[in-house]
Amino acid sequence: LKEGDREGFLKLLKDLRPYDQAIQYMKIPRKLHPLFVECMDLSMLTEMLPYLKASSQVELIQSLEPDKAIPILDMMQNDDLAAMLTDLDPEEIDRLTNMMVREEAENVRRILDYPADTAGRAMTNRFVWVHENYTVGKTTEKLRYYSGYATSMNYIYVINSEKQLVGVVSYRQLLLADPETKITDIMSRRVISVDAFTDQEDVAKQFARYDFVSVPVTDKDNLLVGIITVDDVIDIIVREANEDIEMLMASGKQIDFHTKPFTAAYKRLPWLILLLFIGLVSGSIISGFEATLEQVVALAFFMPLIAGMTGNTGTQSLAVVVRGLASEDINLKESLKLIVRELIVGVIIGITCGALIAVIAFIWQGSFMLGIVVGSSLVLTLIIGTFAGTIIPLILSRFKFDPAVASGPLITTVNDILSLLIYFGIATAFLSKLT
Amino acid sequence: LKEGDREGFLKLLKDLRPYDQAIQYMKIPRKLHPLFVECMDLSMLTEMLPYLKASSQVELIQSLEPDKAIPILDMMQNDDLAAMLTDLDPEEIDRLTNMMVREEAENVRRILDYPADTAGRAMTNRFVWVHENYTVGKTTEKLRYYSGYATSMNYIYVINSEKQLVGVVSYRQLLLADPETKITDIMSRRVISVDAFTDQEDVAKQFARYDFVSVPVTDKDNLLVGIITVDDVIDIIVREANEDIEMLMASGKQIDFHTKPFTAAYKRLPWLILLLFIGLVSGSIISGFEATLEQVVALAFFMPLIAGMTGNTGTQSLAVVVRGLASEDINLKESLKLIVRELIVGVIIGITCGALIAVIAFIWQGSFMLGIVVGSSLVLTLIIGTFAGTIIPLILSRFKFDPAVASGPLITTVNDILSLLIYFGIATAFLSKLT
Repeated sequence: LKEGDREGFLKLLKDLRPYDQAIQYMKIPRKLHPLFVECMDLSMLTEMLPYLKASSQVELIQSLEPDKAIPILDMMQNDDLAAMLTDLDPEEIDRLTNMMVREEAENVRRILDYPADTAGRAMTNRFVWVHENYTVGKTTEKLRYYSGYATSMNYIYVINSEKQLVGVVSYRQLLLADPETKITDIMSRRVISVDAFTDQEDVAKQFARYDFVSVPVTDKDNLLVGIITVDDVIDIIVREANEDIEMLMASGKQIDFHTKPFTAAYKRLPWLILLLFIGLVSGSIISGFEATLEQVVALAFFMPLIAGMTGNTGTQSLAVVVRGLASEDINLKESLKLIVRELIVGVIIGITCGALIAVIAFIWQGSFMLGIVVGSSLVLTLIIGTFAGTIIPLILSRFKFDPAVASGPLITTVNDILSLLIYFGIATAFLSKLT
Repeated sequence: LKEGDREGFLKLLKDLRPYDQAIQYMKIPRKLHPLFVECMDLSMLTEMLPYLKASSQVELIQSLEPDKAIPILDMMQNDDLAAMLTDLDPEEIDRLTNMMVREEAENVRRILDYPADTAGRAMTNRFVWVHENYTVGKTTEKLRYYSGYATSMNYIYVINSEKQLVGVVSYRQLLLADPETKITDIMSRRVISVDAFTDQEDVAKQFARYDFVSVPVTDKDNLLVGIITVDDVIDIIVREANEDIEMLMASGKQIDFHTKPFTAAYKRLPWLILLLFIGLVSGSIISGFEATLEQVVALAFFMPLIAGMTGNTGTQSLAVVVRGLASEDINLKESLKLIVRELIVGVIIGITCGALIAVIAFIWQGSFMLGIVVGSSLVLTLIIGTFAGTIIPLILSRFKFDPAVASGPLITTVNDILSLLIYFGIATAFLSKLT
């Protein structure tokens, strides 16, 4: 397909959406990339670019002649551009932004000045504002003038003479209103805006709650500095959910189907080596109870069960808390209520499972005392496991850490060590009755 | 606040968005609910209702006099209504829908006829369509007429005389076009639609890829039957991510901060009891190797480490596969490539961790042979753990199961049992050299 027939290829390409073009681009061998790019015109390239990985984007831009690269950089949405530049070193950013039209370059630098993961980073400044004194007719004229510039808009934001955000008006309202009407008469004054330093997760929460399609971003003086559109918010929500899962399961950051094996192994090894040393702590606890274990080898049979179940109750609580915090904010009183709830859950779960395993252990090993030791250990460890799984993410979140950070491995550690200490502690206390 | 001053309360309430009203409603004691509802007018109630839990929605509707309940049911978006009714028994659905205007009731019943989690269930039929022969002026007139009816729209869908979907036109295009222009001349014909039976996860993927704000839903004859809007898609994405986490961490379905302790315990217990019996299988494997363990008690020290690490490599791979499948589709060839990649990762991880633990075990226990046994076991179990974590979700997804279903506990089981068998198998084989 790609060997000879350029005409046919271009035709196929034109029928694809930018996302699908990007998928094709990433699928073909690297040496065909220049040919692929040659077939596309500037606007097609500009639209496809944001769907590539950041590193491929930079590679593509750098492979182009300046007379092609510069207009593409100028035409790209500022937020996409900022996302592409974010991982480059400062000199490279300077080199690329210096090629751009001065105004555009300044816009991008301003976006890059906001901290990562804030509203300021995710916003675009390709939006249209009008002054509150405009009429509907004059607004329409301005929109027509900027029609090529701001394509993804559903609302026009209204500012006053101090450039402060005072209202919002939809295309719908403009369409249905008389051209002579003043914007102030039809605009909605109950416009919700976010501060540029707001965490992007909080922005996403607002979109989910209030069913926005776009939201204006303001600075501390309520000056309108950009807008965030719902397509970027969907990306944020998907990325945050993936990050939560990566953290909770300690699976390594941003590993997808295209990650190279060495990179994937390199990203996962730190957690595993950490786990290995945690395992050694558990091992040394067991070795501390070697005398007990030597006298009652049957204690070893229930070790994986107790450690595994404690770990699992911990991660169950953890998952509930982390996902809950991702969609709701809770205050101290509600946190306490949640802790009490989880404690009750721990007691119910602990007593049920503890009673069950006590009976099974008694029947299996024929020792009533062993049943009591295993059962009562499980009751205690499950209550503690649930408690640790609830309180650790709550504390992390109260001190402004992402509750998912390190919580997975942290809770596994705490629960592994606590469960072994409790189990062997109880067993040693009753040792004379066990043998 | 709520005791006397109704006027003041109403004023406060009016300044809140529907989501925040719903939060307040859920926070106040139950016996104040009727008073709360009395303060609100019909349109406020209608807007707040979808943000309550389904059970609270039904409760509220049932508490109202028919002369208030009926107009609310008629005014609600069909998709919200369908979501509210979905868990009720058929008689109750009939009773409620029979109160509604006939046309609205039929629309809701039609939505409820689609299987759960499909596009048909998530769509609303509150949209505006125009015939392709309309002019821009006539379209605007129709929009004005329906302005109270379809509030959340950004696009107008265009149909031909057979009622088939042929194009789409935005408010923007309408606003900027001359009133005499024909819709066919400005509409985009490259409209992407989804079939009503499409899984809602696939719909969400399309929104994320193509940056839609709404998408038309068609039946098998390409007749336009509804639209899905981006606010519903955000809900779907959040819900699906939560479901993935619930499954992966076996934390129980739909437990949030407001779930009662007994309900939460009841939902989590099945997994824990399953895990308890899995733990017993592990226990009986260990008891099968009791003789080995009695001779070399130090083997017990490394048991939690080996089982824990194997479980973790498995869930690492699992998380990568499950989240990858949530955003990409892969064919058989790509699946094989992924399996090979993960196998290489398993080998790298296995050799690194195996070598490390061999040295540590040798130094700690002073037995060269114990180091070899523990190290080689870990190499093998980590490779197998990675492999199991990759292949099980891929097989589940190939046979159209949700790869996250049961994968978490399933992989824990498989890996626990395999790792213990390998570890004690190798130890028993080298037993003469260990003692």
